[in-house]
Amino acid sequence: MPSTHSSPAAADRSGALPIFADIEAAAERLAGHAAVTPLLGNAQLDARLGARVLVKPETLQRTGSFKFRGAFNKISRLAAGPERPAAIVAYSSGNHAQGVAAAAEIAGIPAVIVMPADAPAIKVANTRSYGAEVVLYDRRTEQREAIAAKIAAERGAAIVPPYDDPDIIAGQGTAAREIALQAREMGLAPDILLVPCSGGGLVAGSALAMEALSAKTRVYSVEPEGFDDLRRSLEAGKRVANERPAGSFCDALLAREPGLLTFEINRRLLAGGLAVSDADVAAAMEYAFRVLKLVIEPGGAVGLAALLSGRIDARGRTVAVLCSGGNVDPGVFCAAVTRDAG
Amino acid sequence: MPSTHSSPAAADRSGALPIFADIEAAAERLAGHAAVTPLLGNAQLDARLGARVLVKPETLQRTGSFKFRGAFNKISRLAAGPERPAAIVAYSSGNHAQGVAAAAEIAGIPAVIVMPADAPAIKVANTRSYGAEVVLYDRRTEQREAIAAKIAAERGAAIVPPYDDPDIIAGQGTAAREIALQAREMGLAPDILLVPCSGGGLVAGSALAMEALSAKTRVYSVEPEGFDDLRRSLEAGKRVANERPAGSFCDALLAREPGLLTFEINRRLLAGGLAVSDADVAAAMEYAFRVLKLVIEPGGAVGLAALLSGRIDARGRTVAVLCSGGNVDPGVFCAAVTRDAG
Repeated sequence: MPSTHSSPAAADRSGALPIFADIEAAAERLAGHAAVTPLLGNAQLDARLGARVLVKPETLQRTGSFKFRGAFNKISRLAAGPERPAAIVAYSSGNHAQGVAAAAEIAGIPAVIVMPADAPAIKVANTRSYGAEVVLYDRRTEQREAIAAKIAAERGAAIVPPYDDPDIIAGQGTAAREIALQAREMGLAPDILLVPCSGGGLVAGSALAMEALSAKTRVYSVEPEGFDDLRRSLEAGKRVANERPAGSFCDALLAREPGLLTFEINRRLLAGGLAVSDADVAAAMEYAFRVLKLVIEPGGAVGLAALLSGRIDARGRTVAVLCSGGNVDPGVFCAAVTRDAG
Repeated sequence: MPSTHSSPAAADRSGALPIFADIEAAAERLAGHAAVTPLLGNAQLDARLGARVLVKPETLQRTGSFKFRGAFNKISRLAAGPERPAAIVAYSSGNHAQGVAAAAEIAGIPAVIVMPADAPAIKVANTRSYGAEVVLYDRRTEQREAIAAKIAAERGAAIVPPYDDPDIIAGQGTAAREIALQAREMGLAPDILLVPCSGGGLVAGSALAMEALSAKTRVYSVEPEGFDDLRRSLEAGKRVANERPAGSFCDALLAREPGLLTFEINRRLLAGGLAVSDADVAAAMEYAFRVLKLVIEPGGAVGLAALLSGRIDARGRTVAVLCSGGNVDPGVFCAAVTRDAG
């Protein structure tokens, strides 16, 4: 779909809050590089909930999560811009790492990724497989932002932040843009959209896309209990942080507090924030294995978990659920799918 | 897509070999009941093989396998016909069972399914979940066809055979019809199509669809080693049987010999038959978990296994792979995905 907004116009706004035109421009940049993931229905799921459920499996996205969208949008702009960086640096618990590594490889720019030493092995291995250099740090004693800043200064590298950046938010928003357009082709419009949330880039981009394309859709963030900083921030009307820096089953959803940009968008556009337990998440992973036949990682399954555990009333409604990633170690996955079905 | 052949005309040909018009009619019947499963690309898979690979995940089909297509096509015709049966009987190692049970439930006809006592628990449980009565038998000492015939006589039930039936073959052919049309929308035409094979209904329907829609596509059946009756039959020019009745890792692919109708089609249209080892299949399941993020059962993964193990030269080609089902017990799945990656 051709955008009416050119890239230079969007470039002038970097640092400002992204708008829907930035999502349209990102979709153009991503065409031919990112997968257009399908929007799936499932008769068993619909029957269980008495709802029409539309599952958006970003598990099937390049690098196994939605993160490629934002990373490619950001890095392709940097690569084509007047100050093409000598390298790219990013910090990430794993999915952003893979997205950045793959996008940098396509752009032909070396990438250094700062990852926690306790990140899932599959995420570290995949990041290296895209040609990136991985620097591990201790999540309890070191600051990943400081390590990334040091590397950036030393190597003339550009930092690609995980969520608090207009190009990242716009790139992530292309997933929900697809949901709205694909649902429309099916003659549907979601009443509700459930989006996994860490720093809030995906849900902020999703909310911007729905505001423009499907204004009736109520967008909810979903987080793990105890790491529900956005839910509590939305209730408090200001950004509040999580108490624990680590320890969630959902390794992908560990941002300490909402981003500045993402919170500005989310406080204006979200219908609310939901939180789910680790048991809810494991049950959702088992359901996805057994019924949907999809491999979903813990952090990617929180939206489905909110739906299946009844945290939101779906009956009679059309509910879209974004399943944001599938990069899970086999041991963790198998512990979830061999538990007793809920 | 509207068919130029009406259902009554197709009905007059029951018992004869199906033709492409029957697949078009089946696609019309299935619209709104079966899922249009996506055709997925994966950059990592393409890079590994130096090919353009198109994965058709019938794992995402209603009931978790392609079998719903043929069963619904057959049962909806029986239900709408002049001699609507009092019940439906089928025999199946599991996926046809679920397809028949779900299709009979939609048609409002009671279903009795004859299943081997060693069928995967998930397949037995799912079959019952669609309201069907399950009759278990011993695969080594009893004949499932005889049991089904007895039930049919007692209850005035119609038998829905697993593959050797023109309506079943036509229904299964709708999956490859989708592949051809979806590839065309992407500006592609498969050079090769790999299709899992047991009795040969899916591959026969696939070959008919490709003959009509994508004549350049070379269609191959893929079977487990030791259960490769179609491969050996194609080489012998006549139907030959497997020595062992059971014992394959691929529980879904246990037909003793090619069907009469399916072999007539397959001997005319297939480019050849391939066979893969259990280790190839487990490696393909692990790859699907780790890279594709898809849950594929052993029998559903033989096509992918043939591709990944190099049984066919994919380099520089566009290769479509039908992954036919995802109904696998968690223990079996986890044994495959926690093995060392190949």
